[in-house]
Amino acid sequence: METKGERTKAAIVERAAGLFNRVGYAAASMSDVMAETGLEKGGIYNHFGSKQELAAAAFRHSAGVVAGRWGDALAGMAGLPAVLAMIRTAREFAQRPPVPGGCPYLNAAVESDYGDPTLLQAVREALDGWEGRLRQLLEAAVLAGDLAVPDPAAVAATLVAAMEGMFLLEGVFRTGEHAARIGSQLEALVIAMKSR
Amino acid sequence: METKGERTKAAIVERAAGLFNRVGYAAASMSDVMAETGLEKGGIYNHFGSKQELAAAAFRHSAGVVAGRWGDALAGMAGLPAVLAMIRTAREFAQRPPVPGGCPYLNAAVESDYGDPTLLQAVREALDGWEGRLRQLLEAAVLAGDLAVPDPAAVAATLVAAMEGMFLLEGVFRTGEHAARIGSQLEALVIAMKSR
Repeated sequence: METKGERTKAAIVERAAGLFNRVGYAAASMSDVMAETGLEKGGIYNHFGSKQELAAAAFRHSAGVVAGRWGDALAGMAGLPAVLAMIRTAREFAQRPPVPGGCPYLNAAVESDYGDPTLLQAVREALDGWEGRLRQLLEAAVLAGDLAVPDPAAVAATLVAAMEGMFLLEGVFRTGEHAARIGSQLEALVIAMKSR
Repeated sequence: METKGERTKAAIVERAAGLFNRVGYAAASMSDVMAETGLEKGGIYNHFGSKQELAAAAFRHSAGVVAGRWGDALAGMAGLPAVLAMIRTAREFAQRPPVPGGCPYLNAAVESDYGDPTLLQAVREALDGWEGRLRQLLEAAVLAGDLAVPDPAAVAATLVAAMEGMFLLEGVFRTGEHAARIGSQLEALVIAMKSR
């Protein structure tokens, strides 16, 4: 059973995750975290050794929420249908982000690439996981004879890059048009790799 | 001739541009800008009405430096060769960013998409300009009979998304591998659109 301390810790992570993803990991101060959680500084540092540690835990929480939504969207699917479902889901996420503030991978990546090494490590693990999952789906589609993909790792990296770029452009322009155009192009690109 | 005031203003923009692109527009405080420029707050606000105004000017400066480098790389080229040169240049920029802190479009986009509307407007204009330029190159390649592209606007949006995603992934992993893989895939993608 979850103790009171564990519940408090989980509540801090959840609140901080929303704050950091909307405002930014560096831009949101510990005072902002205190205001968001209604706790004193000591109550927060009781559970986290540093702001960096809290930031990494908050990112993992946001990334986990999004990963859970991906998991629901792809449930029971494999190979080619799963690849196409991933692209369709990304398009929906670009138009209606599952967590406030837009894609947590995108936000945390840009903040940490030349910054906080603890957060960067968490972002690397998350992006590695996504790329690896997509590569496995592509490889399964090749094994099933559905796709002809000479280099699944390169295609996975390119699709992840294009999906992150779609989140970025749709976040900036917010007309739905970038998600529609890019989503359709990526689906067509995968379909063009179908084995004949 | 440039006045002393204009020189000071230009120097503030240049210093602030580097700071904001490395540290973040929201994360870098006006005190940080003061430290970076060696000026008092009044000396800065003498030239800019607000931090937002300075942030937008700083972004335009960084984006202009990068646009100038693109211009050099594509000088004298048009159509298909220019499209391929743009992808090769993006790959080089991903591995060796032309300004410290990585792609200014990526950084400012992520900061402003749910934030500062003045900066967001500047980012929209910059991204619009890049997408529009790429679309024109694709259209010229179609007119020249080099490429068969049914929807140049959609292909331009997808290539910009993938290049921004390449900057993001290379910034996170820094092995050169993401830039190499994604760059090659994007070149192959364009070459696959060659008219037969």
